[in-house]
Amino acid sequence: MTKQPNRPAVVLLSGGLDSATCLAVAKSQGFAAHAISFRYGQRHTDELDCAIRVAQSLAATSHRIVDINLAQFGGSALTDASIEVPKHESVDTLGETIPVTYVPARNTVFLSLALAFAETIGSNDLFIGVNALDYSGYPDCRPSFIAAFEAMANLATKAGVEGHRLTIHTPLIDKTKAQTIATGLSLGVDYSQTLSCYDPGEQGKPCGHCDACLLRQKGFRENGLDDPSSQPE
Amino acid sequence: MTKQPNRPAVVLLSGGLDSATCLAVAKSQGFAAHAISFRYGQRHTDELDCAIRVAQSLAATSHRIVDINLAQFGGSALTDASIEVPKHESVDTLGETIPVTYVPARNTVFLSLALAFAETIGSNDLFIGVNALDYSGYPDCRPSFIAAFEAMANLATKAGVEGHRLTIHTPLIDKTKAQTIATGLSLGVDYSQTLSCYDPGEQGKPCGHCDACLLRQKGFRENGLDDPSSQPE
Repeated sequence: MTKQPNRPAVVLLSGGLDSATCLAVAKSQGFAAHAISFRYGQRHTDELDCAIRVAQSLAATSHRIVDINLAQFGGSALTDASIEVPKHESVDTLGETIPVTYVPARNTVFLSLALAFAETIGSNDLFIGVNALDYSGYPDCRPSFIAAFEAMANLATKAGVEGHRLTIHTPLIDKTKAQTIATGLSLGVDYSQTLSCYDPGEQGKPCGHCDACLLRQKGFRENGLDDPSSQPE
Repeated sequence: MTKQPNRPAVVLLSGGLDSATCLAVAKSQGFAAHAISFRYGQRHTDELDCAIRVAQSLAATSHRIVDINLAQFGGSALTDASIEVPKHESVDTLGETIPVTYVPARNTVFLSLALAFAETIGSNDLFIGVNALDYSGYPDCRPSFIAAFEAMANLATKAGVEGHRLTIHTPLIDKTKAQTIATGLSLGVDYSQTLSCYDPGEQGKPCGHCDACLLRQKGFRENGLDDPSSQPE
C-alpha cells in the first residue's frame, strides 16, 4: 500500500492483540492514527488500561475513550457477570455456533461512533482489527459485514455526499492469529502490553481457557514463542 | 400492511413531530412498540421531556433514554452552543447544502444502538421517522442510506446469521410534513406534546425561524391548522 503521510485515520483499539497490531499497521502505512476505545460495560476494564499503554507505546496521534453502556441492553457474557464465559480444554473444542460472549451489535455501534469521530476530524479511513480466521464466530467480524458497513458509511455522512470515499481497512481479516502476531512483531508491537482474555483474574491475568486465550496461545505457539503477557492463573 | 399483534418493534423517538407520528404508526400496525431516545449532548433537552410525554400518551410498551455523548466529537450546531443555528424568514429561503445543524453520523449511531437493543429483545423491526421531503437535507435521512443500513444490519447480528430478516420501517419517508401531520392526527397524536425546534427558548418555546420550525409551520398551515405547540417567542 502507498504511504499516506499524515493522513488522519481512526483506529479501533480494544487493548487486545488484534487491535494493537492494527494500530501498528496503520502507523506503518504513514497514517496519523487516532485511536478510539470504548468503556461499554465490559466485565473488566483491564483491557482499557492495556489500550492506554498500547496507544502510548505505538505513538498514536491521539487516543480517546468513549462511554457507551451496552450492558444496559444485556444479552452477552461480556457485559453480564451472571452469564459465565465458556471455558475449553483446547482450541480444538471451540464451538461452531455464535458464543454467548457475542455482544449484540457491538462492532456496528463501535464503527458508527468511530465514523462520527472520523467525520469531525476529516478522516476517510477507519481501521478495525477483525479477522475471519482463528476468531470466535461473531457475525460482525465477517468480511460481508465490513463491506456492507462501508457501503452504508459512504451514504451516511457529509463526506459521502461530497464524493469523498470512506474506506474501512481490515489489514488482519485474512490472517491467522500466528500471521497477525508475526506482522505485529515485525512492526515492534509489545504484546506484553495487550490483553485478549474474556475473563481475566486479578491484576488482569488471563484465564487461559476462554476462546480468546486459546486462540492467542495457538498463535504464539505457531511462531515458536511464549506469550509474553502475564501467564494464566 | 398486515397487523403485527404484539410483535416487538423498536421506535426511535426524539420528541419531535415526525418520531411521534412514527410511534403512532407502529402502534396502529399492531406492534408492541419499544421507544428509544438519546441524551446525546443536544443543546437542549426539552425534546427529551417531550419524548417522555409522547411515549406515555401513545402507550409505548417501554421507553428508554440512552446516554451517548456525541458533543465530544463536535462538528454540529446541535451539539455545540458556540455554533449558531441558522434562522430564516420563510421556508422558501432554506438552503440547499447540508446545514450546520447536521450532527455527524447521528442516525447511524442511533440506529446502531436501536439495533443492539432490538437484538436483545428479539425484535426484527426498527422504526425511524425520517423523511426525504420537507427535511433539512441531512445525508442520513435519504432512502439510499436507510436501505444500506438495513442491508448492513442484516449481516451484523445473530438474527441475520440465523436467517431472520430485519426491517427498517420508514413510514414517513415519502410524505410531506402536511401528510405526516394528517396521518398523526388520524391516529390521535397530540402534537402539543412534541417539539421540533432546533433552538428553543425558555420553557421549550420554539424559535419560529429555524429549518425545523419553518417546515413544521408549513405542515400545519397546509392542513388549515394552527400548530398546537407553544407559540414562537
